Amino acid sequence: MKPENIVIMKPGILVTGGAGYVGSHTVAALLERPNTDIDVVVVDNLSNAYKSEGQKKPEAISIIEELTGKTIHFYDVDIRDANALREVFEKHDITCVIHFAALKAVGESVQKPLEYYQANITGTCTLFDVMREFGVYKLVYSSSCTVYGEPESLPLGEGHPTGRGLASPYGKSKYFCEEIMKDICRSDRKWSVISLRYFNPVGAHRSGRIGEDPAGIPNNLMPFIAKVAVGRLKELQVFGSDYPTIDGTGVRDYIHVEDLADGHVKAIKLFSQSGFNGFHAVNLGTGTGYSVLQMVKAFEEASGKKIPYKIVGRREGDIAANYADVSLSHRMLGWRATRTLRDMCADTWRWQSNHPDGYKST
Amino acid sequence: MKPENIVIMKPGILVTGGAGYVGSHTVAALLERPNTDIDVVVVDNLSNAYKSEGQKKPEAISIIEELTGKTIHFYDVDIRDANALREVFEKHDITCVIHFAALKAVGESVQKPLEYYQANITGTCTLFDVMREFGVYKLVYSSSCTVYGEPESLPLGEGHPTGRGLASPYGKSKYFCEEIMKDICRSDRKWSVISLRYFNPVGAHRSGRIGEDPAGIPNNLMPFIAKVAVGRLKELQVFGSDYPTIDGTGVRDYIHVEDLADGHVKAIKLFSQSGFNGFHAVNLGTGTGYSVLQMVKAFEEASGKKIPYKIVGRREGDIAANYADVSLSHRMLGWRATRTLRDMCADTWRWQSNHPDGYKST
Repeated sequence: MKPENIVIMKPGILVTGGAGYVGSHTVAALLERPNTDIDVVVVDNLSNAYKSEGQKKPEAISIIEELTGKTIHFYDVDIRDANALREVFEKHDITCVIHFAALKAVGESVQKPLEYYQANITGTCTLFDVMREFGVYKLVYSSSCTVYGEPESLPLGEGHPTGRGLASPYGKSKYFCEEIMKDICRSDRKWSVISLRYFNPVGAHRSGRIGEDPAGIPNNLMPFIAKVAVGRLKELQVFGSDYPTIDGTGVRDYIHVEDLADGHVKAIKLFSQSGFNGFHAVNLGTGTGYSVLQMVKAFEEASGKKIPYKIVGRREGDIAANYADVSLSHRMLGWRATRTLRDMCADTWRWQSNHPDGYKST
Repeated sequence: MKPENIVIMKPGILVTGGAGYVGSHTVAALLERPNTDIDVVVVDNLSNAYKSEGQKKPEAISIIEELTGKTIHFYDVDIRDANALREVFEKHDITCVIHFAALKAVGESVQKPLEYYQANITGTCTLFDVMREFGVYKLVYSSSCTVYGEPESLPLGEGHPTGRGLASPYGKSKYFCEEIMKDICRSDRKWSVISLRYFNPVGAHRSGRIGEDPAGIPNNLMPFIAKVAVGRLKELQVFGSDYPTIDGTGVRDYIHVEDLADGHVKAIKLFSQSGFNGFHAVNLGTGTGYSVLQMVKAFEEASGKKIPYKIVGRREGDIAANYADVSLSHRMLGWRATRTLRDMCADTWRWQSNHPDGYKST
């Protein structure tokens, strides 16, 4: 081999869907760690990430490079394309994978189930196939509290049954992937999979420069409130005011996306513990639920804007309340959410007010 | 267009996995119908079907052509290969699909879950994608009573919960596919899917020329008994004699593969009923359960051979008994199993004694 062909590769972490909302914040958290000498390799098919004409990298990735002064290896690759994935594994010394790439809009999944199952299940299976080919057996999975269905009891612990009465193809795809990964881990002890079950991610990077940028009208409460505050939407619809909760509106466990990102950084540390293997599901939430009206009030305080809202009927498939039992995440990952509701609102507002039309505003 | 390029295509039925056990018997049943003028198009990746060196078609397909005097269009195609599937849809005027192609060994699925999920789920999703591209919206699915898990009550009706406590990736893959197909049918009323939940298919074509040809040591009772009868295996192991059943051994609802094949022929007739659409799960069984020892005795009578057996401990994941509620299949398909236990044993023995090593013996 000629000397110029010898390339010393740094160990790398592959982040699929790394240009998306939680993905980009996790990429930032990975690179913000002090004394890190690891390659961060992002694959993303840009199905839900903004890239401006003529740029090589999506906006979120370029901004993280600017914020951290580090280079991110970016590939415009769909994880269902096994050959394209193989090329990425050939170019980098991937040691573990954080797997965000998926479609995630609950309502859309009811309209387009095949697209959701293909993206989320076929995508995940193809990724596992290629990982195995390259001897990479460590993965952090982006799961959801949706897998619990309607809670039998609260707070929701990881031992709560999963997969029962799931209303949407999105939720089912997350549950099916967890089951598939459990079976893979049972079949071969080389595998380690940590499935992080997110509660309700909100907020934005403290810089106000990366954040959630949903296409079209937001499905989730916080981005909807933020769009109302910034004048892009007229008023908030509150679905149901007769739930058995503090004020009758739905209660959720909102968690700051930077806390969530830190949870992923903590999770990959487990892979270096000797003897760590198998499938592990871990909740990422704060353990505290807030109602829709509490969120509205907190956002009004943080933004100084009035959020007009209208109470309408319940939305099909919605549940009254959920919040996480966070004891396992603390015990296993040594992680706890530290950002407050005020932080979540202030950071969302910083991002949204600077970017009324998301990354396009940059 | 030159006249010689005009090809008048007959309407065709696509049978995926049509060279396998249930698939080949269904192909035979489709072609044995009187006054049928329909193309039968088989795709099969030959992962579990015998084709002798130098032959273009798998043995089972060639024999059916011989028995029926009709030509079968055969393609050596893996259904995960969307482009290869597209070519088949371009060449034929496919009106509906009977979808058998899948991996089906319960024990192997525990060892190789990723292979099972890829073959069974990715395969099914790819097939649906290509069907939609070509405007084909009617499918009969090869499902299994495994989706019911451990029965809460007997007989098992289609309303029994599915998906709970499924022990194997094979069973889960059947359940996941049913859920995926339900969601697809809900999202677009153009789709009609009939999911046939087989109980325990046994037996062989009455000609004795096509039958079950499992690779290696059989997993299922009947082919195991047959291999013992023909001297290829020494003795039968009976897993458990302390179940709460007639004689303590496990009870199953065995159904003759020719009855099963007829059920598929009846199912596709529903597609021509005006207004028929949506997802429908239908049991295919006889409604009667027989114990292991009853099966041994019946097979001894049919074959005139002694079947030595040894009682050993229960096998993990096995249940005591299952048998089908067959009222829906009767009401909806106008179908009932007509072959007796004696037929099942006699036909299995005719096939096995003529083919001690399966199709390789031909």
